[in-house]
Amino acid sequence: MIINMSERATEQEIQHVIDRIKEAGYQAHVTRGAERTIVAAIGSGGRRHELEALQAAPGVEAVVAIAQPFKLVSKQVKPSGTVVDVAGVRIGAGEVVVIAGPCSVESREQMLSTAHAVKNAGAVMLRGGAYKPRTSPYDFQGLGLEALKILDEVRHATGLPVVTEVMSTEDVDAICEYADMLQVGARNMQNFALLRCLAKVGRPILLKRGPSSTVKEWLLAAEYLLAGGNSQVVLCERGIKTFETETRNTFDLAAIALAKELSHLPVIADPSHGTGRRSIIAPLCRAALAVGADGIIVEVHPCPERALSDGPQSLDFQGFEMVMRSLQEPLASIAKPAFATSGAA
Amino acid sequence: MIINMSERATEQEIQHVIDRIKEAGYQAHVTRGAERTIVAAIGSGGRRHELEALQAAPGVEAVVAIAQPFKLVSKQVKPSGTVVDVAGVRIGAGEVVVIAGPCSVESREQMLSTAHAVKNAGAVMLRGGAYKPRTSPYDFQGLGLEALKILDEVRHATGLPVVTEVMSTEDVDAICEYADMLQVGARNMQNFALLRCLAKVGRPILLKRGPSSTVKEWLLAAEYLLAGGNSQVVLCERGIKTFETETRNTFDLAAIALAKELSHLPVIADPSHGTGRRSIIAPLCRAALAVGADGIIVEVHPCPERALSDGPQSLDFQGFEMVMRSLQEPLASIAKPAFATSGAA
Amino acid sequence: MIINMSERATEQEIQHVIDRIKEAGYQAHVTRGAERTIVAAIGSGGRRHELEALQAAPGVEAVVAIAQPFKLVSKQVKPSGTVVDVAGVRIGAGEVVVIAGPCSVESREQMLSTAHAVKNAGAVMLRGGAYKPRTSPYDFQGLGLEALKILDEVRHATGLPVVTEVMSTEDVDAICEYADMLQVGARNMQNFALLRCLAKVGRPILLKRGPSSTVKEWLLAAEYLLAGGNSQVVLCERGIKTFETETRNTFDLAAIALAKELSHLPVIADPSHGTGRRSIIAPLCRAALAVGADGIIVEVHPCPERALSDGPQSLDFQGFEMVMRSLQEPLASIAKPAFATSGAA
Amino acid sequence: MIINMSERATEQEIQHVIDRIKEAGYQAHVTRGAERTIVAAIGSGGRRHELEALQAAPGVEAVVAIAQPFKLVSKQVKPSGTVVDVAGVRIGAGEVVVIAGPCSVESREQMLSTAHAVKNAGAVMLRGGAYKPRTSPYDFQGLGLEALKILDEVRHATGLPVVTEVMSTEDVDAICEYADMLQVGARNMQNFALLRCLAKVGRPILLKRGPSSTVKEWLLAAEYLLAGGNSQVVLCERGIKTFETETRNTFDLAAIALAKELSHLPVIADPSHGTGRRSIIAPLCRAALAVGADGIIVEVHPCPERALSDGPQSLDFQGFEMVMRSLQEPLASIAKPAFATSGAA
Repeated sequence: MIINMSERATEQEIQHVIDRIKEAGYQAHVTRGAERTIVAAIGSGGRRHELEALQAAPGVEAVVAIAQPFKLVSKQVKPSGTVVDVAGVRIGAGEVVVIAGPCSVESREQMLSTAHAVKNAGAVMLRGGAYKPRTSPYDFQGLGLEALKILDEVRHATGLPVVTEVMSTEDVDAICEYADMLQVGARNMQNFALLRCLAKVGRPILLKRGPSSTVKEWLLAAEYLLAGGNSQVVLCERGIKTFETETRNTFDLAAIALAKELSHLPVIADPSHGTGRRSIIAPLCRAALAVGADGIIVEVHPCPERALSDGPQSLDFQGFEMVMRSLQEPLASIAKPAFATSGAA
Repeated sequence: MIINMSERATEQEIQHVIDRIKEAGYQAHVTRGAERTIVAAIGSGGRRHELEALQAAPGVEAVVAIAQPFKLVSKQVKPSGTVVDVAGVRIGAGEVVVIAGPCSVESREQMLSTAHAVKNAGAVMLRGGAYKPRTSPYDFQGLGLEALKILDEVRHATGLPVVTEVMSTEDVDAICEYADMLQVGARNMQNFALLRCLAKVGRPILLKRGPSSTVKEWLLAAEYLLAGGNSQVVLCERGIKTFETETRNTFDLAAIALAKELSHLPVIADPSHGTGRRSIIAPLCRAALAVGADGIIVEVHPCPERALSDGPQSLDFQGFEMVMRSLQEPLASIAKPAFATSGAA
Repeated sequence: MIINMSERATEQEIQHVIDRIKEAGYQAHVTRGAERTIVAAIGSGGRRHELEALQAAPGVEAVVAIAQPFKLVSKQVKPSGTVVDVAGVRIGAGEVVVIAGPCSVESREQMLSTAHAVKNAGAVMLRGGAYKPRTSPYDFQGLGLEALKILDEVRHATGLPVVTEVMSTEDVDAICEYADMLQVGARNMQNFALLRCLAKVGRPILLKRGPSSTVKEWLLAAEYLLAGGNSQVVLCERGIKTFETETRNTFDLAAIALAKELSHLPVIADPSHGTGRRSIIAPLCRAALAVGADGIIVEVHPCPERALSDGPQSLDFQGFEMVMRSLQEPLASIAKPAFATSGAA
Repeated sequence: MIINMSERATEQEIQHVIDRIKEAGYQAHVTRGAERTIVAAIGSGGRRHELEALQAAPGVEAVVAIAQPFKLVSKQVKPSGTVVDVAGVRIGAGEVVVIAGPCSVESREQMLSTAHAVKNAGAVMLRGGAYKPRTSPYDFQGLGLEALKILDEVRHATGLPVVTEVMSTEDVDAICEYADMLQVGARNMQNFALLRCLAKVGRPILLKRGPSSTVKEWLLAAEYLLAGGNSQVVLCERGIKTFETETRNTFDLAAIALAKELSHLPVIADPSHGTGRRSIIAPLCRAALAVGADGIIVEVHPCPERALSDGPQSLDFQGFEMVMRSLQEPLASIAKPAFATSGAA
């Protein structure tokens, strides 16, 4: 930590900061500049929050952290990267994992037909919501336990492991009985009571990035899971909230590259929520692979115009097949210099 | 709902939309323009989500809602406005209610001294966190039940009703035993499991606006509470997340005016979180009153530089007294025309 | 500047940074911590950009500025504050200055009637656009020179000084002939060619904050004007672009308080653009005064529903009179403790 | 346009809107719903802004546009897409065009060495700033005319066409003399005086997206160029301003897919400004290609740590070669179902 003193800070105020740094268990190292003084707190065994609180001390302009706030999720802890195994599907092992399925579980027939279709097209995991976080209390809230039982039947019928969202600590046991992976939704990314509960569960977690969360806040949410004992965590970028309204969210692919640079956890991409527009899902899936995502999760529905939720961003079976085919195509062809004979070059 | 057909929509696609509107329980009213056709769905007893899903039907460009999505919180339901009574303190009754106290309950002494100081300065309610939502798992997480007992003791000692944050459905009973009002924090505004639980509790709720929530989403979160049976809801603006980093959040005072125009619920303002900067709390408190807030909630700590959380935005006792005094000052003096003699006017 | 070395930085990399700091004209002060090393560059006569470029040097994690980047606009330069005189109207002198008028100059009659109406209601300056920045090339682009002549006639008829927007260096001379103050629009806040030109003009400038500009960037735009020779600058907050779409922009009143804390320049508020909603202009005008703005600028039109631009946010004459009256009302009444007899307190 | 009347609108207010629609040159088509009435304005020859102004008429809740506001840039005008020829380099013709070079022209040697290096690695155009838009007046502002002459010499020496930024109408002639393509910087995207001037210039334009501009606003800025007579326009996505500060901007790759869906103009990507972080330029270049960009523009400097601007996001020669190589690699390998023998599937 660096404590940046105000230009008008007095000697007494500087000394007070030095005393407080020592009191917090650190050494103080003073640098006196032309215009102002800075004091560095050195050491690793002290009480960090006491340094942060010095922001409020007289004569202090800013307290600047110079170390990353997360520890266990940090790349340095495990430079080779983590592989998360979901009932045999390995995420983070080098090959891209495709997860597909509807936003909500609506019926046995809907799930069975979707699961077979996405498996045939190349998906290796199934998604489907039993408990749905909906902005309005008047929207479809999910089939709950009935949906979990359908998911269970379908995973046995198709062999596809299942991921489904958990919205409340009270549902954790039931979901663990029927699903292979638990998803923390974007709006619950900082539901710390839920994170603390899931840290004790022996199941892999899919942690979506919150719509107004920075990459650092996302990694710190994952840190709650690892610090609590669950290291089976996959991060999922699904877009952030910005002024742009043409897309449902702003899909932040640089965040995927950055999360993989900073952390050892696998990262997957959700272009369905990231864009909210069916017509551009395919190019964004390709972009997610190009940027290094370990997988993609895509919404697929037998008949999007009859979906109980997220129809506009859902692909039908044919649309999903086309996406899967587009993932096989080469990146692009690069223009070659057309002026070889010109100039002195 | 208006279904806006694409310019290239075929007759068959238009007819399909008309059929689906009728199937959903509405009448269809077609308007054929120079470039495109629009179809309005008329009626009130149909299945609204089936109209929304038409966004995914062939030939449809957009489905545009023309009615507000919330009902019970709407101003029209109760034009005179709701008054929420918190153990005798009436919020929304015309006079501005001042709530003050530390971010976190840290000790009995800290709470007692703060409660007496803010009461003497004019506050009529006390705030203080027992369960703290913290970005990092390594930060102070609150004293929990011990803090609740301190709050209880202090409210008896001072007569100040107490508001404290609830982070989990599991803590609701304990908090109801010791506190007068339950706060839903900004990061839990769309924790729907928590909202559904609090809708069943016979206690007033302070519902903070989420950092990436629009005013409509905020009102829909309140709608969960009212629809579930709890109409004792006070809204609280505490800033939204934007690109501006000089302030901790961007304090959206227009949202207060707008929420009061759209809804009958009282609205209070939290300039401590809204700005994150102690030096500008006073003018922003004044602005909140000027814009029509029914109250303000302010962080006060005996020694901000030793606070376990939110020190930089906390006022000390003297600072809070100065804020309270500033609230008594007149609005401003307006410059009069200095050119009475000039021109032909 | 502090150069924060990576945890893995080698001795050679640290030495390289020290050498480059000296080469740039500063002293280097090294602090070796438990996990990493930081190097402070001390002095004031060096080449700052060479320090910033060290961000790209091997082993460097971040270069952190500890001083504010602006100089001439800084509060410390002139703690008493600047008063800008616009043809006799003094902005920043303690009394709130009210500027009113239509978005665009549309006709002689429109301007004359508006000028008289706003003057009668208490405005002391007139606004009106001759050159209009419009998102679409098919929208009304302003009457140009004809509008300037109308403005000139109306200011003589009413004695109200006039402010109008300048969009191009080519129009500066014409505008200076007919107007008293030149406005730099939000979208031109970082049009540096225009700023450099206006720095040479002997007229007061109204500098609107850009829709995606931080307070620091706004002050640095003003710094261009002062550094170029024009110190007659008034800042104007008019809202920033965020995810909230219920209001046209998010009106950032904390930015006014902050700009007044950091700078000696006067600051006025534009709630018309800041909110885009006529129904909440009055409370936001009050809030702007409460937060310490030196003035407000409000859009007024004889018949908003016939305005060629910005009708939805324009007040009619009666609406403006009501706003002016609301500015005379006291701030608010504060609830007193109702429980004086309760408890032990 | 659809005029959405308020629930409380009177018959008289509805009739007034109908009259105004006819007065504006359209037909009015009324739909009376259960709760409210909507009025559609039909026709194509009327005065659109008069409809928009109805937002301010009594009883009107909202005026909703149902047609896109842009015309000439629309995909429907030219479904096959536009190819822009820059001195022999064809952008939008199917192959990806790579443009590279330093942020600023600093010296003859710097430009010559960079041009040869990027050409050898596969770039077909050169970038370099002569006039620099800088946030602070104290930062390096570019070498101006001297830089233009260096660019001219280097393009003759290497055969690489040159793109450089134009900040002011006054510099247009000089830049046209020495450069092949003129860039409108992000901060000038809505400098309409500049756009109007460039519409008259017979040179291709590179139009960067503004940091707070929606895709629609970006396309409308291009519309200014086409409507004014210049159809040689290439769009460039370079990131938008959001709350995320780990990256310099939030690089919006979905905007590229969307711009290509809505418009016939070529679109290129600028990951250097889009991310501001050298370490993730390579994956984001790949992602830009995957999403369908017609080209990329990348900052390259002989020694980034000595660059006069944008060092942290500039690649050195070796770094650029690695990027170019990464563009040849296949997209990714997709995990195959590993459970072929399991279940009933």
